[in-house]
Amino acid sequence: MIHLPDLQTPAALVDDAVLRRNARDMARKARSLGVRLRPHVKTHKCIEAARIQVEDAFGGITVSTLAEARHFARQGFRDITYAVPIAPRRLPEALELAEQLENLNLLVDSPIAVRAAEDAAAARSQHLSIFLKVDCGYHRAGVDPRDPASIELARTLVEAPHLGLRGVLSHGGHSYDCRNREEILVVAEQERRETVAFAETLRREGIPVPEVSIGSTPTMAVAEDLSGGLQGITEVRPGNYLFFDLFQASIGSCSLEDVALTVLTTVVGCYPERGTLVVDAGALALSKDPGAVHLGTPVLFGRLTLAEGGAVLPELELISLSQEHGKIQCSEQAARRFPVGTRLRILPNHACMVAAHFPEIHLVREERVAETWKPARGW
Amino acid sequence: MIHLPDLQTPAALVDDAVLRRNARDMARKARSLGVRLRPHVKTHKCIEAARIQVEDAFGGITVSTLAEARHFARQGFRDITYAVPIAPRRLPEALELAEQLENLNLLVDSPIAVRAAEDAAAARSQHLSIFLKVDCGYHRAGVDPRDPASIELARTLVEAPHLGLRGVLSHGGHSYDCRNREEILVVAEQERRETVAFAETLRREGIPVPEVSIGSTPTMAVAEDLSGGLQGITEVRPGNYLFFDLFQASIGSCSLEDVALTVLTTVVGCYPERGTLVVDAGALALSKDPGAVHLGTPVLFGRLTLAEGGAVLPELELISLSQEHGKIQCSEQAARRFPVGTRLRILPNHACMVAAHFPEIHLVREERVAETWKPARGW
Repeated sequence: MIHLPDLQTPAALVDDAVLRRNARDMARKARSLGVRLRPHVKTHKCIEAARIQVEDAFGGITVSTLAEARHFARQGFRDITYAVPIAPRRLPEALELAEQLENLNLLVDSPIAVRAAEDAAAARSQHLSIFLKVDCGYHRAGVDPRDPASIELARTLVEAPHLGLRGVLSHGGHSYDCRNREEILVVAEQERRETVAFAETLRREGIPVPEVSIGSTPTMAVAEDLSGGLQGITEVRPGNYLFFDLFQASIGSCSLEDVALTVLTTVVGCYPERGTLVVDAGALALSKDPGAVHLGTPVLFGRLTLAEGGAVLPELELISLSQEHGKIQCSEQAARRFPVGTRLRILPNHACMVAAHFPEIHLVREERVAETWKPARGW
Repeated sequence: MIHLPDLQTPAALVDDAVLRRNARDMARKARSLGVRLRPHVKTHKCIEAARIQVEDAFGGITVSTLAEARHFARQGFRDITYAVPIAPRRLPEALELAEQLENLNLLVDSPIAVRAAEDAAAARSQHLSIFLKVDCGYHRAGVDPRDPASIELARTLVEAPHLGLRGVLSHGGHSYDCRNREEILVVAEQERRETVAFAETLRREGIPVPEVSIGSTPTMAVAEDLSGGLQGITEVRPGNYLFFDLFQASIGSCSLEDVALTVLTTVVGCYPERGTLVVDAGALALSKDPGAVHLGTPVLFGRLTLAEGGAVLPELELISLSQEHGKIQCSEQAARRFPVGTRLRILPNHACMVAAHFPEIHLVREERVAETWKPARGW
């Protein structure tokens, strides 16, 4: 078993105890709210992490690429939602994968995609399970739930001989624009209300809507505080909650103690007279995600702790990243406390970006590497 | 041979003709300036690309990670500079690699690193070739060339029995803060002058300095305009120039026609009533690099062209990225021109980040994939 001091840097570490607590908390929350948990695995793209997430759930997962879908399918996951509107030319790939699964659910939100999906499924005499993507206020993807054309699209879907409408699905991604839990509560209620209302509109029109799926880590963080809970929702799809990160802590989705993913780094440059340090975690380790800039706080690319973890060292400010260098600003005295060779840990701004950058993620238990995971990659 | 329409998206494409022109131009420039070209291969991390870069050069390369160094060593590259100050604990790895090469040059800029390098080399009875990293004004890594302690450090280096001082090395990374070629010229002259002056100081002290190495893509873009050329310099290490990108074009290092790396993408969401499109190239394809924000122009995460290339479509503004979604803002009419399934190309802000994100990079010749390259990964 590898001890942390024997790992080379930069290295992505996941705290086993924190990860399991995050997984249990979300599973418990979904149960108490009476919804199924279909975790989004894009945050880590690792088989082992997904298994921990579905231990207390029904086994379905959400993915962000067909490469992830194939990766998880190969390892026994049988119910997968690909939660990005599919490019029509990738439908044959999806159909091939669907043959190997109990359920592969695709997202569409346009007549062109519905027609392409029907044509592709018909050409292979297959049946495709489809979620109609709804815009609940985030305004990224999804049909307008108030537009009569959206009802027509749902009808086209249910009438297409080779397609089945699995349900409606939305993502309250504008929760990431919130500054605190009070603001997230408003988005969470909107995400629920708009999605359920659209499902009910369709049902009134005689269109069956078995599933009503929502979910983001921030909105799930406050879901138990909603006066009506998640009434009308059947399924939730948070992902980031397994790792959490500085962004989530900044807007109130979690506390710093809930952040399971950190990056182990080494001081490779120490310049007390300039008041700077250089660490070997740069933009390829941490990504250039600037964190919760909408809060108006100065942009930092992560926060530092000692290698053993513990409290954030507020005197070390990770002010810029180049490809393989992280530049820390600090006082002359602070710089002298962290000479070349010192190891530190970085709490990252955005865990999903960081995990995707590392070829390996180390699960750490009592300062030792208990497991090493290999994330899926590509598209 | 794969035709572009048969590639799935997102895909990283490199235009063969533009790439070769960029490579030839830089090789010619280095020759005309009387310096050796040791290209930085971190921009692409691909064997095939590095071979094109060194066709007209002496064969040495620069890398940003030991993983790159090992990758290129396995494929026959024999003279490699690892241009990030080495973490002391990685010295045994470096020594193992050095045994297989003609030259592995490491960077140090602290007494701790010099001592660690000497101890590690002595323990294996090996000899290590070292560049002393100098700060020429960028203030990221490197010793202060005006500090007498820097001369002492060079002396410690030459006196260490298992170390050899290969030379001094700097990187004018503050050229990336420039707004135009006039400003880059000032940095280029500073990079040259400070590094050469430090080398001369050391020589006056009786310390031999065989190599004086500088280089960044912006400063090399203007090097021929320097009144004294690159007098006193022996070697240059630009990297980005092989691909170029929007950042380099924005500050005047190249024109848009010189950008060799693009990302092929598909419109997966089209919302004319909201004036938006969604493409399947998000932050994992393009990185969250915001580009040349110091120019004060609005942040865009890339510029769009038709799938066949050609002029930038100014009406399409890539205003935000999430993990796998790119959100384009445009007029209602513009959105209608690019329905779901339309393919587009993206000129990226930062080619080095993009190339590192893709498991494969396709070299394109006359709308066909001529070669598929696999970049090195990790650390």
